[in-house]
Order: sequence, then C-alpha cells, then structure tokens
Amino acid sequence: MRLSQFHLHTSKETPADAEVISHKLMLKAGMIRKLAAGLYTWSPLGLRVLRKVERAVREEMDAAGAIEVLMPSVQPRELWEETGRWQKFGGQLLKIKDRKDAEYCYGPTHEEVITDFARNELASYKQLPVNFYQIQTKFRDEIRPRFGVMRAREFLMKDAYSFHISDADLVREYRNMHDTYSRIFTRLGLKFRAVQADSGAIGGDASQEFHVLADSGEDAIAYCIEDDSDGSGYAANLEAAEAVAPGERPAATEAMHQIDTPTQKTCEEVAALMGIALERTVKSVALMGVDADAKPQFGLALVRGDHAVNEIKLAKLPGLGDYRLATEAEIAEHLGSEPGFLGPVAPKNAIRIVADRSVAAMADFVVGANETGYHLAGVNWGRDLPEPDTVADIRNVVAGDPSPDGRGTLAIARGIEVGHVFQLGRKYAEAMKCTVLDDNGKAATPAMGCYGIGVSRIVAAAIEQNFDANGIAWPEAMAPWQAVVCVINPKKDPAVAEAAEALYRELNAAGVETALDDRGLRPGAMFADIELIGIPHRVVVSERGLASGSFEYRHRRAEEAENLDRSALLARLGVAG
Amino acid sequence: MRLSQFHLHTSKETPADAEVISHKLMLKAGMIRKLAAGLYTWSPLGLRVLRKVERAVREEMDAAGAIEVLMPSVQPRELWEETGRWQKFGGQLLKIKDRKDAEYCYGPTHEEVITDFARNELASYKQLPVNFYQIQTKFRDEIRPRFGVMRAREFLMKDAYSFHISDADLVREYRNMHDTYSRIFTRLGLKFRAVQADSGAIGGDASQEFHVLADSGEDAIAYCIEDDSDGSGYAANLEAAEAVAPGERPAATEAMHQIDTPTQKTCEEVAALMGIALERTVKSVALMGVDADAKPQFGLALVRGDHAVNEIKLAKLPGLGDYRLATEAEIAEHLGSEPGFLGPVAPKNAIRIVADRSVAAMADFVVGANETGYHLAGVNWGRDLPEPDTVADIRNVVAGDPSPDGRGTLAIARGIEVGHVFQLGRKYAEAMKCTVLDDNGKAATPAMGCYGIGVSRIVAAAIEQNFDANGIAWPEAMAPWQAVVCVINPKKDPAVAEAAEALYRELNAAGVETALDDRGLRPGAMFADIELIGIPHRVVVSERGLASGSFEYRHRRAEEAENLDRSALLARLGVAG
Repeated sequence: MRLSQFHLHTSKETPADAEVISHKLMLKAGMIRKLAAGLYTWSPLGLRVLRKVERAVREEMDAAGAIEVLMPSVQPRELWEETGRWQKFGGQLLKIKDRKDAEYCYGPTHEEVITDFARNELASYKQLPVNFYQIQTKFRDEIRPRFGVMRAREFLMKDAYSFHISDADLVREYRNMHDTYSRIFTRLGLKFRAVQADSGAIGGDASQEFHVLADSGEDAIAYCIEDDSDGSGYAANLEAAEAVAPGERPAATEAMHQIDTPTQKTCEEVAALMGIALERTVKSVALMGVDADAKPQFGLALVRGDHAVNEIKLAKLPGLGDYRLATEAEIAEHLGSEPGFLGPVAPKNAIRIVADRSVAAMADFVVGANETGYHLAGVNWGRDLPEPDTVADIRNVVAGDPSPDGRGTLAIARGIEVGHVFQLGRKYAEAMKCTVLDDNGKAATPAMGCYGIGVSRIVAAAIEQNFDANGIAWPEAMAPWQAVVCVINPKKDPAVAEAAEALYRELNAAGVETALDDRGLRPGAMFADIELIGIPHRVVVSERGLASGSFEYRHRRAEEAENLDRSALLARLGVAG
Repeated sequence: MRLSQFHLHTSKETPADAEVISHKLMLKAGMIRKLAAGLYTWSPLGLRVLRKVERAVREEMDAAGAIEVLMPSVQPRELWEETGRWQKFGGQLLKIKDRKDAEYCYGPTHEEVITDFARNELASYKQLPVNFYQIQTKFRDEIRPRFGVMRAREFLMKDAYSFHISDADLVREYRNMHDTYSRIFTRLGLKFRAVQADSGAIGGDASQEFHVLADSGEDAIAYCIEDDSDGSGYAANLEAAEAVAPGERPAATEAMHQIDTPTQKTCEEVAALMGIALERTVKSVALMGVDADAKPQFGLALVRGDHAVNEIKLAKLPGLGDYRLATEAEIAEHLGSEPGFLGPVAPKNAIRIVADRSVAAMADFVVGANETGYHLAGVNWGRDLPEPDTVADIRNVVAGDPSPDGRGTLAIARGIEVGHVFQLGRKYAEAMKCTVLDDNGKAATPAMGCYGIGVSRIVAAAIEQNFDANGIAWPEAMAPWQAVVCVINPKKDPAVAEAAEALYRELNAAGVETALDDRGLRPGAMFADIELIGIPHRVVVSERGLASGSFEYRHRRAEEAENLDRSALLARLGVAG
C-alpha cells in the first residue's frame, strides 16, 4: 500500500475526553472516529488491525474444528422470553419495535438464536459434537460507554456455541477451546493469562477468562509465580482466587485489655499507635443478611487488617446472597457503637459472626471495643468471645499468599478480559426444549458450551500492553503493516524514489507486508506518524544512504536506528537475500 | 473439508412458503434458516457461498483503489435530521430508542454517516479523490419481506462513497466503479447487464443499475440485440429506456366514422372485431393532474393499443408529478362516457391531451367514441380533433423497437438488481456542510458518488440464473467447493477410503477447493445432496473404479458421468498431472 493512496489521518493533539492510553492513541493515530456515545467508525488504518485479529481468530477456530455460521443481529423477543432473559438481561439489552410493533432486540449475545437453530437443525446424536461460531456485530447498551472501543456499545465479537450428547464431550471441547484461545492470543503476540472465573450471570458449571495483561486493566488476577514460565500454572480472577486455609490457631498468650484509641479508627491507625504489625488487627464489616427463617439478621464479617473482603465470596454464603452494608443506625442498635470502633466482643444483641479463615486462626488479636475511643487487644476466640458462627474464605488473596495448587506463592497482576469460555450445561437447551435422539432413540437434552472473544476489544487491549511515549508498538501479527519504506525527498532525486519503490515491491513479494511512505512529508513528521501508528520495522531510503549503499533501519522498540547494507537489511526482515 | 465434520443439512421436502426457486433451493440445501420475518441465519454451507461473494467484491474494490472502513450499524437520529431523511425515508427505516431515550436507526444505508466522517476527516482537496467502502450488515424494515434473502430485512451490503473536488473527478470514479462492478459480476460467473436507471429517491445526476439476468427477475430490461455480444451496448431499465421518436405522420386517407362496439372495450377486442392490426388503435388513460395554476386538471394519456404507459416517464411531465388515475365520476363529468369507450375526440369539457410520440405520428387511427357501445375509426389529428397539448415519450419500449443508440433493435430481458452506481452530486455534502479547502484555499463542497452491491442478494440471484430440476448449479467462483470426492462404501474397503482421501488431499494441494464426502451415505442419497448443493465437479471413488484404474467424473451441468483415468481426471480439473 502506498500511503499517498491510503487515507492516513493522524493528529498531534491529545484528545481531551479519552481516559485511557489505548483510546488516546487510537484517536491520535486516526484508527477510529466517534459517531455517537459508544459508536465508532473504524478508519482504513484501524480496520486493517481489526481484520488481522479477525483473521487470526477465524483461522484458529477453523483449525480447531469449529464451523462458521452467521446469525442475524436482530433477534425476536419470543426467543428471549423462552429463557426468561427478555426481563433478566437488564438495561444492556437494546430493545427494538418494528413497523408492525413486533418486538426485537439487537443481539448482545446469541445463546437463544443458536439454540433455536440447533433445535431445528440437530435431530440425532450422530450430528454431535458440533461447535458453531460466528464473527459478528453485537450491541450492549452500556450505561456509561467509555475507553473507546474497549467498552463500546456496538462491537465485534466472535461467539461460539457447542452441543454435546455427554458431559465428557463438553469438557473435551471446552479444553479444545481453551487451547485454541491460548493459540490465538499467542499468535497475536499478546501477553495473556487464562484465569478461573466466577461464571457470573451467564451461569453454568465451569468457566475461564482470558486476560491481556496490562497495568491499566480493570481486573486483578492472582497467579502462581513459581509456575509462571509457560502460563499453565494456577491463575484466577481476584474475584475467584482461593485464599488457602491457614495453619492451626496458636494458643492464647495475652489477657484481653482495652487500648485508648481516641482518634484511631482504621486498623492501620491502631496498629501504628500500638507499634504492632497490621496482620495482628482484625477489621469488622457490619452488614445485613437474613437468618435461616429469612428474617433480617445483623452480622459482622471479619478479615485481617491487611486483607480486603471479597464481596463475591461473601455473597455465596448462606443468608448473604443479597447482603448489604449495615447503616449507622443498625450498627448503633446491635453494637451500641459508632463506626470505627466496631468489634465482635460483647455486642448489645445477638449477632452473626462471619470470620475469614485467617481470622479464625488468629490468637491475641486486636478489634474495636464497641465503644467510641477504644479498641481491645489480646482478644482470643472461645475465651473472650464465642467461636465464630461461620468460618469461610471471604477475603481477596494478596501477593505472597500460598498458591491454591500448592506449588508456590501468588502474585497479583492486572488484566483486560478479552475472552471467556463457559460450560453452560443444559440450562438453555432445557429452557428452549432442544433435544436430539440418543443412541437408544430417546430424546436427550444436549450439553452446551459457549466461547466468546472480544475481537474489537483486543485491538485496544493490545495497545494498553504495547505503547511508549511516541505511540503504539504493535506486536508483529497485529500491525497494520509489518514494515514501512520511508522515502526522503522523493521529488528531488528520482533515484531515491525508484530505489524505495523497488525495495517496497521486493519486500511485499517476499511476504513482508510493507507500506511505502511516499507522501512527501519531511522526515520528522513522517517518522512521528510511523512511530505513532506503530509499524514494527522502519526502513529509510535517502540520497545519502543510497550513495553509501546503505539503508537506515529501526525497529519500533529499538533505541537507535542503524545503517545496514542490503543483505543485512533483508536478513533483519527475515527475507532470504 | 470432510463433510462428516461439516454440518450439511439438506431436506427432501420442498418448503411450502417459498415462492421463488432460489428461496426454495436455499432452504432445501440448508443454506439458510429463517429466524423471523426477513431474518435468516446463514448455515455453514450458505456462509461459504456468501463469503465467496464477499471476497470477490472486496478484492476488486481494493484493486480499484477504494479503501475499506467499517461504520456502525446504529446511527443517531441527529445526522438523519440534517438531510431531512429521518422523516422522508419512510417506514423502511427501523427506528430505535436507547436506555436514555436517545433516538437511532439501524442503518439502511450510510450516506449520512460517511458524510459526517468526511467532514471531520477531509480538510483539503489534497486528500481527494477518495472512495471509502464497507461490507456491512444493513436493515430495511420491508412491509412484506419475501423471497428469502432476496428481499430480507437484515442483509449484507457493500456500500461505497466517493468524494471529489470536481465533477470531472466524480465522473471518472463513477466510470471506474462501473468497470469494477462489471469485473466483479464477470468474476462471479454471472450473466448480467448494466442498465441506465431512473435514479429514484436517492437522487442525483446519473445512475446505472447492475442486473443479474433471470426469467424470474422483478425488473424488465431493454437492451440492444445487435450490440449484445460484449454487454457494452445500450441497455436500460424498462422504467428509463427511451422509445425513439417515430418518423413523420402520414397523410390522412380515411374519413372519421363510428363503429359499433357493443361489448368491445379493449383495444385488442376492437382490433379483433375490425380485423385490423392492434397498432392502429389508441388507448386512452384518464388521469388527474394539475394545470399551470396548480388547479386540478383532467387529462387523457394516449398510447398505441400495443403499448403500455410508462408511469415514471409520465410523472416527469409538467403538471403530472403527482398525477393519479381519474375516477369513473370524473370521467363521466369530463367525457360524458363510461370507461372502455373513452377517446380524445369531442370531450364534454376542455381536457389536456398527452400523446405519446408514436400516437402523435399516427393517421387514420381508432379511439373510443365517448359513447357507450361505440368507437371512432379513421380519426386524424388537426382535422377531427386538435393537435395534442403535449407530445412526449410516455410509453414502455417493446421488443423490436429501435435502440436509442441507433445501432439496432431492442429486446426485453428480466433481471434482478444486485448493484447500483450513483452520481450523487453535492446534495448530501451541502445538507451536512461538508467542505474542503480547494487549491485557492477556499471552502468547496465536494461532489459525491455512491456505489452499492447487495452481497447477500447476489447469492439468491445467482441461483435464479443457475439451477435445474435437481438443484443449484453454481458458477465455479461461487460454489461452496469447486469439487467433491465421493466415497462409495468406505467402510467395506479401506483401499477405497484411502484412494479417496489421497485424491482429496492432492486436489486441495493443487488449489482445487475440494470436499470429501465421507459421510457413508448410499450413492443415491449422496449424489442427490451433491447435485442439490450444486458442486461443479463430482468425482466418485469406488471399488469397481479402483479395480479398473478409473474415476467416475461428472460436471454438474453434464448429462452423463464419464470414467476417466487419473491423468484425464486431473486435466479435467485443471490440475497439471
């Protein structure tokens, strides 16, 4: 591609309304342009990158035996009523009425449509297993679309749905898709991790998320450091990572005593005042759940002072499915105290104590005294207060925790979710009465898996992982072009233009996708553009270089340019000279 | 592709609700499945064909210098208000409200979005000419979606929009796109014709339609027979084809006289009664238009008895822009007659006479007498009635008419519109205040062209042109596979399966896209499937053939199969042996 014939449109200004680096750089590079909230046009440059991702996804899905289909984006309400999701899906579902007042939605996902397709197309177990996928435009009516294409309303997604006669077959295909996703992200040159996920609203039996690692990621990921060399070790979304049970509780050594903490309300402040480690303090979170009779019940969730409550784990406990934080009035009623001095010792009323496993294993710990200005130290279970009502894993893991697989310690990284694999089980097939005949001729409900990749989001996520002060630094597989030949002053010296043209043709013929920057810009402006849009290999053809038989070569990630002769240049670009 | 691993799902039943052959065959072959009115899922088989079309379109557009972008399908109302089309587009526009009650539509076309993109992206004439295209899903809320994907509501379209600093540049790109479209349809192996079109509601200066020729086509096309060898001769949509002016009017030879036509109301009946040629009669169509003062005006449109009125031509005449047919009461008031005996001679009131050019050139003709049961013969202009108020081309051309290019005679064919090129001019750019700086540094409104291809419709149109009693007979370039290797009884004889597998691999390696029918069906069922889905080349590997060193080969359009040895087979498939 000659850039003079290509609509490249970069900008020097940093867009004011872009919050994250990928959004800023995609706008500056002219990859996307906003049409309305959460709606973006992909420019020629942006689309080249998007298509690279799309092609990698398609080729790997095909190689994995999945079969491509294309479903409508507009879906009738009736199907969504069959699964109950017309109501349950919530405000993200963009609802539409046609000219006859029939109701539809713009599909945010296609479980209903594919299950309808399957119940019509699949009659026998002999047609299974089968995995249908599509690469298609979706719409989710986000309350606050942001971060450019990272959380757009209209976006490009690869979604796949598999059907199986047995659970074992589902598990096999689930693993196949897991491995396929790993191949896709590896091929795209991304640092990523597959993590155990909380399966959330889509439901089902097992699920894993794929995250592109980036400091700006919205999600926290816990992974086993010692196992990390090949990415196959333990990793989980912080929401789901298990905090391993601690050892036995030590014996009590101190008597319980009151400490003056006139202004010290947080564990950090109390520990500093007392000159003790934060790990010896206990944080009390007051909340309202329900008891066994479904009546409101006040409780305290206890985690160590250096830990944080994991709301998802907490909500999985009996009576806490819909818990909320307690109000100050409720706290006063049950503990007779104001926030900042709460604790589990001697409450006014009977309350429920939910202790994290690490708290249940503590002795001689520090808690609020339920009296303004005081904490209690040397507190011990069984002696100063009853054993906890509930002991469970209710905290987020932290760096240094032992890995649940027993193979080392955990570290925390940040990630951007770009893929998700689910074992859906029979939820959708049952709701929609999708059956096939099994090998006994009896109707059987197939097990389903579903597997999504955020194709357009990957483009933004890759930038979050690959940029510097000058712009984007694409992994080779995602770059709009692998290489660019820059011509200095082509109009001044026809020989320079000819040499550049010849090199440009030669590289393309050799399979290196190469652009020719023949726009006639001055070197500074040209190089700034090329760095901004992130082309991995830059070759400069100039009068001076031509005279000395050399080309100036610079990799996007290199500190300096170097002068290479022709054969060294070709070797650097992987072309046999 | 091994068909055992591919979800092929044909049906023996002919779908009752499908009206046209392409819809029937696409359902029988399992290419599409209906989700709701005008919404179809493309099965793996159907999608393979759709992608062939998509790829051909993309590659030819790229080669022609157009640049691909991707615009959102959901478009904000505000843009459509700028061009006035939010109201004017009519019921086909699918309107949407999001969760914040902001209004959008599901784009049926993208003139507004691309012009918004252009006014932001294009600042200088130096960025022109440029032609942006996309291949993207559109929605038109048809009142009566029908014929499967031929007139679906959600469909795949290639739309392109070009921007130019001068009209000359627009004309140049318009021709480029015309030639590109010809290359696309030629490459797809379709018999087609580019025809002059009435540019209709989109407006603009010039436009041509591309029609796939098929007897079932909804449109009639007039073309010059003598010029037809390379498709470059005169051709026009019947709506737009010019009826060449006839020669001089002959002198009158008969006196006007009344004929008894007690039950004869049509020109055909009168001509039969009189034993004269239909061409000597004149048909009178009573209509209401407006006069120069915009007051209602009764008129008669006159065409020869063997001709039909062309409503589009008629509506272009002054005062007839919004004409309608007259009621019986209006006819009685102005002519004193009932329908069936109308004529231009001696009306009760002053009326407007609009004569087709061929009628104005007639002498001694036959018309209704404005009296029930009578016609007049030997009627002559200027003598029996005044010269017509308006003489114009208001009829459809018929086969045998002289071609307007003076190079022969016209024939009529039927076609399915699959492409359309328009010179839009400055209509959208002006409405949306899109300007660029010209070479004098002044703001100039660019001229625009737009160029559409119905990608999914092409699939159906190709079938309408290529089928027989056994199913589809794809042109090579659109077939899901070029060839299929059928294995007879693979389980009985491993050598047969091995030979088939080897041939399958060899053909694919040689660039012949080949499927292996390893489903283990009996020959009759297998061959019926293969003929139904329309694979051009079928090779059968059987025990008997293997014993004699031959393969059974049959082209989809051949009457008989033939036995070929290996090298003859490879030669037939275009593979060097």
